[in-house]
Amino acid sequence: MSHYALGLDFGTNSVRALIVDTHTGEEVETSVWNYSHGESGILIDPKDPLLARQHPQDYIDGTIASTRAALEDARKTKSFSPQDIIGIGVDTTGSTPLPVDSEGIPLALDSRFANNLSAMAWLWKDHTGHSEAEEITRMAAAQHPEYLAKCGGTYSSEWLWSKVLHCLRTSPEVYQAAASWVEIADWIPAFLTGTAHPSKIRRGICAAGHKAMFNPAWKGYPDVEFLAGIEPDLAKLRNSLPDQAYTVADTAGQLTEEYAGKLGLRPGIPVAVGAFDAHLGAVGCGITPGVLVKIIGTSTCDMMVSPFDQNLADIPGLCGIVPGSILPGSFGLEAGQSAVGDIFNWFVNSMRPGGPEAGSHEALTRGAEVLKPGESGLLGLDWHNGNRTVLVDQRLTGALFGMTLHTTPAEIYRTLIESTAFGARVILERFEEYGVKVERVVNCGGISIKNPLVMQILADVTSRTMEVSRSEQTCALGAAMAGAVVAGASSGGHADFASAAKAMTGIRDKKYIPDPKAVAVYEQLFRLYRRLHDIFGTHQYGENQFSLMKDLMAIRDKVRGV
Amino acid sequence: MSHYALGLDFGTNSVRALIVDTHTGEEVETSVWNYSHGESGILIDPKDPLLARQHPQDYIDGTIASTRAALEDARKTKSFSPQDIIGIGVDTTGSTPLPVDSEGIPLALDSRFANNLSAMAWLWKDHTGHSEAEEITRMAAAQHPEYLAKCGGTYSSEWLWSKVLHCLRTSPEVYQAAASWVEIADWIPAFLTGTAHPSKIRRGICAAGHKAMFNPAWKGYPDVEFLAGIEPDLAKLRNSLPDQAYTVADTAGQLTEEYAGKLGLRPGIPVAVGAFDAHLGAVGCGITPGVLVKIIGTSTCDMMVSPFDQNLADIPGLCGIVPGSILPGSFGLEAGQSAVGDIFNWFVNSMRPGGPEAGSHEALTRGAEVLKPGESGLLGLDWHNGNRTVLVDQRLTGALFGMTLHTTPAEIYRTLIESTAFGARVILERFEEYGVKVERVVNCGGISIKNPLVMQILADVTSRTMEVSRSEQTCALGAAMAGAVVAGASSGGHADFASAAKAMTGIRDKKYIPDPKAVAVYEQLFRLYRRLHDIFGTHQYGENQFSLMKDLMAIRDKVRGV
Repeated sequence: MSHYALGLDFGTNSVRALIVDTHTGEEVETSVWNYSHGESGILIDPKDPLLARQHPQDYIDGTIASTRAALEDARKTKSFSPQDIIGIGVDTTGSTPLPVDSEGIPLALDSRFANNLSAMAWLWKDHTGHSEAEEITRMAAAQHPEYLAKCGGTYSSEWLWSKVLHCLRTSPEVYQAAASWVEIADWIPAFLTGTAHPSKIRRGICAAGHKAMFNPAWKGYPDVEFLAGIEPDLAKLRNSLPDQAYTVADTAGQLTEEYAGKLGLRPGIPVAVGAFDAHLGAVGCGITPGVLVKIIGTSTCDMMVSPFDQNLADIPGLCGIVPGSILPGSFGLEAGQSAVGDIFNWFVNSMRPGGPEAGSHEALTRGAEVLKPGESGLLGLDWHNGNRTVLVDQRLTGALFGMTLHTTPAEIYRTLIESTAFGARVILERFEEYGVKVERVVNCGGISIKNPLVMQILADVTSRTMEVSRSEQTCALGAAMAGAVVAGASSGGHADFASAAKAMTGIRDKKYIPDPKAVAVYEQLFRLYRRLHDIFGTHQYGENQFSLMKDLMAIRDKVRGV
Repeated sequence: MSHYALGLDFGTNSVRALIVDTHTGEEVETSVWNYSHGESGILIDPKDPLLARQHPQDYIDGTIASTRAALEDARKTKSFSPQDIIGIGVDTTGSTPLPVDSEGIPLALDSRFANNLSAMAWLWKDHTGHSEAEEITRMAAAQHPEYLAKCGGTYSSEWLWSKVLHCLRTSPEVYQAAASWVEIADWIPAFLTGTAHPSKIRRGICAAGHKAMFNPAWKGYPDVEFLAGIEPDLAKLRNSLPDQAYTVADTAGQLTEEYAGKLGLRPGIPVAVGAFDAHLGAVGCGITPGVLVKIIGTSTCDMMVSPFDQNLADIPGLCGIVPGSILPGSFGLEAGQSAVGDIFNWFVNSMRPGGPEAGSHEALTRGAEVLKPGESGLLGLDWHNGNRTVLVDQRLTGALFGMTLHTTPAEIYRTLIESTAFGARVILERFEEYGVKVERVVNCGGISIKNPLVMQILADVTSRTMEVSRSEQTCALGAAMAGAVVAGASSGGHADFASAAKAMTGIRDKKYIPDPKAVAVYEQLFRLYRRLHDIFGTHQYGENQFSLMKDLMAIRDKVRGV
């Protein structure tokens, strides 16, 4: 008899339900439901381009609709019964917190706040709290530098405390009405299991550790004096938060009768504690110590784990080092590139080289793939959207060197790809410089599957074989694996993630093997890239400080009156 | 009674005849004749893209046809008589030398060599002698560094000795048949005046000084031992050359009866010694000490004069410092940018941003002109075709800094313009650093007339008023002024160039005045440009050598197998 786990993957625009065979890893059925509120699921404010919210009703409706559709389709084609689903896992975007009342019900579902954008879920890419983020960074740097050391040195406007502080100051009626704030990664498992009450809800270490400065080293969230020093009323939220956080191997609760009925599943099956998509995506790629998982899309997430018993130093420039945020028993290490596919898209969509016909990704790829490494004489810096790792600097910008009167769009396109591969190599080397050995690289995400040229260049630049995850939906797969683990081996699931990974994950036959000739040329080009990286990224070249990109941005901002 | 001078301007594809009133400067009539040989006047070799030659018959036919057409048109509309033309001046491309026989007749006109490309005029852009140029540079650097000091430190493949040496080695039958080699700037006045015989011909200081290492300081051309040390047979040519060279204020001879008849002019009128187009173009802009003349087209020539009695140092990075090459009594100083319009053309024609419609110069200019200085956050290095002045380095390449995911083609277009203006400012400042004060800037050439955006940015970047020459054909006008000067005041011409300039040149009402707000921003941007210029151009940033562009070129050449 087969057993299945359900993975629920809450993205920016839609939710995906995936049913996976816990023993073969077969992805039996998947279904996607697009959020119904706002523009593609995002509530916006025409007056404020920084605002991006979501309606929590979409999470409830989307859970039901996507799960039922997947179950229905699975039943049509397989010898499958919904009763054989033994556990559920959840991954979400983040930091995406929402305010809840004293019962754990989102304020957005209260008619008093039905039209109040501040009562909605504050989507990861909501940047309304940017000045609050700077304030928090300043205060933490002065009083608690250890808070910043685990999250790359800068507290982001995308993260919990920036958003909450902004709400407190601009929508005090919402802040005062909220009993607490909950990441949707925590709230979704909670509503499914009837554990949303603030005293009951289990908060995941992934969101708490990466986005809310939670760390066991200082016994949880930032201390109340620190937060109250920024704004006295923050003490209220801090006091609503627990001292403990949980990994995805922990159970958030059991599926309630109510939601079992709505979903068409057995009541009482366990739901795992939630985590972010990139982290469960790494799990879905079968991450273990020594494996670098690269999730490559518009940007990248570069994930590794390092066992607790290894002596892990702080690694400068990483976005996060959080115990248990990916796998229990290991530090979860998160790095990333701020833009990869986005840079190629910029070149195609904004520059539109050679006209709309000639300048497609396909045409440029055809032109780029016949070029030899080094042949164009071009070299680029891939900082069009800043640099997340290892420079952790949003105010860096891109650069291109070596143009002549004969330079072609295809040459530039290839150079943009190469520059992102050099950026990837800097991250890989940073892990290894701090003792986190990279033995294999497993890739997932759209580009890893659809763009052989990018993958080959990545192999040649890093001199590493690039493997590609078998699954096209590694986030949902990782979530399903969490469901299988909380169900346990005795129920047809798995005792731990190692067992789940062995059974449920895999890589494709097609691997990208480094070509020694290309490796040799890229070795030379990387040395040049690295010098440019240091000149323009660290501003510490020779005896002179030179902050070109920031100087240009400062001039730009002044001219624009920003 | 009015008097007129005739200017003959021999370009790359055509010859222009211009009739100018010597007292009012009125440009009475002009006529252009396209060369009839080869492709647009250029003889090419499909097997050798470096080869570019011209048939000297085109110079003869073109002189006659363009002059007669101009005279005929002038007679139709004016109270004008060809008898009132009192002198002729000639400007040409260069270095464009041709081999002649013992009578001064081009070998190309000898039936034995009628189809021999080596017997033709070797057009300025013929680069077949590139390895010979390197050899000459090497030898001169070792034995006679003073030869290179006046021509920017590198002997070019475009110049006389490279071409002759290449001919000697690859077409010895031509070299052996030649009694001498003559620049067309010298040969054209000579055939008009019957002075082409090698013992009679007057060679201009402009071609000799800028292209053949002639200098009064070492009594003329390079010494015979030096040349014979490179290749023994070069002694033959060296021995055919005189020790003296002449300025455009000198008379090459008097128009022969034969050519007076063919042209329809009075026999016996004086023909001035010839010079290059840029130099007589500067004259046509009314150049005097303190005036920087910028000839702005696909590339630029930046010309100044410095009186002999001022103590002029060698100015590092200038292409040429030659006594009398522009005006008698002054050093002629030549600088330039390797690409200006060519960079804008590259962006439009090769990158074709935004498709063929949206990416025209006009559309990009509309987008660029509404941007404020500094608003894009972009900055560029304008070295897409190397850097002629002050770095004198063909192996430099362009660069662009500051791109984001929002960067637009119009922003890049404006940045390319700005980068060329920064390059222009470096040249202007180099003159002044060495005591050659720039009191006015007078521009000519296509861009100066057609592109107000470029001119305004040039004014704002340099914080100088940009004046524009009244004439659209300053080269031919300068040649006509030489004709007026050799005719002399008593014949209705001028005693000297100062008098000719006062009467015959002028500037337009439209001047480009620096906008203080833009100047302030560009001052900041220029400081950043200058640092980039020094990091990537002089390779001497901080304690570290960093030859990025050349390293990239070396990798490129190796990969391409060059």
